[in-house]
Amino acid sequence: MFFALTNFIAILNNIIKINSVGGFIINIAVAQSGGPTCAINSSLAGVFCQGQKQPEIREIYGSYNGIQGVIEDNLVDLSSVIKNDDDITLLMHTPSTALGSCRYKLPDFDKDNEVYKKILNTFKKYDIKAFFYIGGNDSMDTVAKLSAYFKANDIDIKVVGIPKTIDNDVAMTDHTPGFGSAAKYIATTMQEIIRDSSVYYLDSVTIVEIMGRDAGWLTASSGILKVNGEVAPHLIYLPEVAFSIEKFIDDIKNVQKSSKSVIVAVSEGLKLENGEYVANSCLSDTVDVFGHQYLSGLGKYLENVVKKEIGCKVRSIELNVLQRCASHIASKTDLDEAMMIGEQAVKNAIEGKTGVMVVFERISNSPYTIATNTVVIEKIANKEKLFPVKWINDSNNGITDEAIEYFLPLMQGEISPLMKNGIPVHINLMHHKKIK
Amino acid sequence: MFFALTNFIAILNNIIKINSVGGFIINIAVAQSGGPTCAINSSLAGVFCQGQKQPEIREIYGSYNGIQGVIEDNLVDLSSVIKNDDDITLLMHTPSTALGSCRYKLPDFDKDNEVYKKILNTFKKYDIKAFFYIGGNDSMDTVAKLSAYFKANDIDIKVVGIPKTIDNDVAMTDHTPGFGSAAKYIATTMQEIIRDSSVYYLDSVTIVEIMGRDAGWLTASSGILKVNGEVAPHLIYLPEVAFSIEKFIDDIKNVQKSSKSVIVAVSEGLKLENGEYVANSCLSDTVDVFGHQYLSGLGKYLENVVKKEIGCKVRSIELNVLQRCASHIASKTDLDEAMMIGEQAVKNAIEGKTGVMVVFERISNSPYTIATNTVVIEKIANKEKLFPVKWINDSNNGITDEAIEYFLPLMQGEISPLMKNGIPVHINLMHHKKIK
Repeated sequence: MFFALTNFIAILNNIIKINSVGGFIINIAVAQSGGPTCAINSSLAGVFCQGQKQPEIREIYGSYNGIQGVIEDNLVDLSSVIKNDDDITLLMHTPSTALGSCRYKLPDFDKDNEVYKKILNTFKKYDIKAFFYIGGNDSMDTVAKLSAYFKANDIDIKVVGIPKTIDNDVAMTDHTPGFGSAAKYIATTMQEIIRDSSVYYLDSVTIVEIMGRDAGWLTASSGILKVNGEVAPHLIYLPEVAFSIEKFIDDIKNVQKSSKSVIVAVSEGLKLENGEYVANSCLSDTVDVFGHQYLSGLGKYLENVVKKEIGCKVRSIELNVLQRCASHIASKTDLDEAMMIGEQAVKNAIEGKTGVMVVFERISNSPYTIATNTVVIEKIANKEKLFPVKWINDSNNGITDEAIEYFLPLMQGEISPLMKNGIPVHINLMHHKKIK
Repeated sequence: MFFALTNFIAILNNIIKINSVGGFIINIAVAQSGGPTCAINSSLAGVFCQGQKQPEIREIYGSYNGIQGVIEDNLVDLSSVIKNDDDITLLMHTPSTALGSCRYKLPDFDKDNEVYKKILNTFKKYDIKAFFYIGGNDSMDTVAKLSAYFKANDIDIKVVGIPKTIDNDVAMTDHTPGFGSAAKYIATTMQEIIRDSSVYYLDSVTIVEIMGRDAGWLTASSGILKVNGEVAPHLIYLPEVAFSIEKFIDDIKNVQKSSKSVIVAVSEGLKLENGEYVANSCLSDTVDVFGHQYLSGLGKYLENVVKKEIGCKVRSIELNVLQRCASHIASKTDLDEAMMIGEQAVKNAIEGKTGVMVVFERISNSPYTIATNTVVIEKIANKEKLFPVKWINDSNNGITDEAIEYFLPLMQGEISPLMKNGIPVHINLMHHKKIK
């Protein structure tokens, strides 16, 4: 019944659109890029829902595997796979990128425009006049290049960026969708690890390795447990300040004077005074197309250091991909905002904006109020917003109350995922992808 | 108001007990031992609540750090730290062992009875006539020795074991409290990892390392995703059958014919045909007091094997301690049953039973019905219940539908933890521990 009504409204909507706005009616496309988060599908839902509401928009296409789906003509009519409000909710509660992702870097179009021609062909074929790219710093490089190419060639296709990343390191926005859920997972899990690590009456050190290559936002977020009366994590080390093994050992010995169980949060990207990664000795040899090395094994490395230098029981825990995909403990604020910023991007494109990314501006912490705005993409692409050094304590091993005030609103609220057989239900849009 | 009423009832209850039952009134003690779980505090809550209900029982003591608290006279009057129904709920939603734990092995009393005398002294000092020990296989060794010592010396102190372990490897019981929540976490997390691993359009293998030294129950539980239409995890390897690196590589290559992203679940305790641990090369040199070696690094080891033999993108994920302490996604069935078995243990002791452990007997799968019973402790202590080989598929890389039917009821239902600042609230009873 619900399904039939939704369909009827959609059909009615299209009839109205065709008859009333004439030549002004456009189609749009949306794609997801970069690493998974819990909120990136909520932004997809936002683009889809706003696209259905706008009288100027008829078809809403999804591109599989980011910009690659546009290059290879692998699109899906989203209304054929997202069929009703229940599907929207499932989409919002499904982690990772429902349309798949890519790590594809566009060449400069003045040097090599072959791939741009392919993109243009696909957009022409489907009459796509606005393209929305949900991604992080690297993905905004694609928004910048694509919008510049269209402008340079006088082609009226709007390109709007929608931020996402658990790393919270995108410039010019108060925060990024995906970060709040990751922070909520990290704080929740850290608290459980604290309980787990305190059961035996012996000296122990637990090292929790958290994602963040250059920016310490995620690792820092574990410090919010303080507001709930938790003493741990006792030590928090961020990549924004140089790391010293000697000081690290001294800090632990100092905490051990008052606590049998010492909990340490470390960012995977900790660097020594000379700028080298601490984990350099255990670096994987893989480098992504943007030239970033994959880090792994810092926690294990520090575990061995503590074992050797202090000799007590030590355990390292790598939160790994769980911190970016644990949608069962997502922040409702994060998912709602991610949807909102997706909706806003569509409105901005209809208003004529292109070569921009939608950003959040924080009006106040209490009551928590945010607004959206747009920023020209050149101010954002390939830049990184680091954790403010002024929010790191004087001992360089913890965060200030100001940082906690910043974090808290982003982590509020829980979702109630639909459960089947005791497990959350996900939606899978990849089933519909054309296999080439 | 609620608090005042609860206190009043407690006082009234004690007055009635003192006046009506006379010399029959006893005190009891409870302790927790072994590794943390999400449900062990629910069993503590069960002992406490039933203790308050029984007219024969006056004081309910908690022993800090398992049997060590009894040896060292480190007890707490539980009614002074668990003050109302809200505290009971918080206790049930707090992971790990609220009273701390130990890995202490009692000597044989006919060889060395010094420690038994200390235990007896504490029990006499507090007039404790029944002792409840919540733990796994190793902890049941303590129940066996202690009850045998009391019997041999004609001392009327009942000792009753309450099972717990995420490993589900305790003999004579259908399942153990703590397992259902761990299995729910593993399946939920595995599904999120599947989403996370499927975003890029390239061949990849994701290896998820799950706890289970000798018994594959936890690793096997990831196979239930099948009932929700999930194809992955494609391969599941359990320690109950010999592992072959060659077959492992062949199995992966076989799955790659139909799936770009291959998901593999491996138990940390996989063994080769000759009985050696696969992870032997990366064994930690630590051995616990029961002679078990700590395993670590199997996933990393297999990651390197796949990299070398297949050459595609490979990632290994160690679920680590999170699988035993992630109470935010606990199974309601598990916590309720854990409380129930704690209550039952108190009833059994009052009936005069000693030297027993309370067990679950499954009456039917659908509707799921269980009953409790008691089994003499000698049939349980130091034994291990392995995953049935008949529930492993013919290719030794998956589980049967019968196994799924067994798992499903244990993972049903969710809790709604009290949240503060976006994070679940825990109760901390360790604050009250005497520091010696």
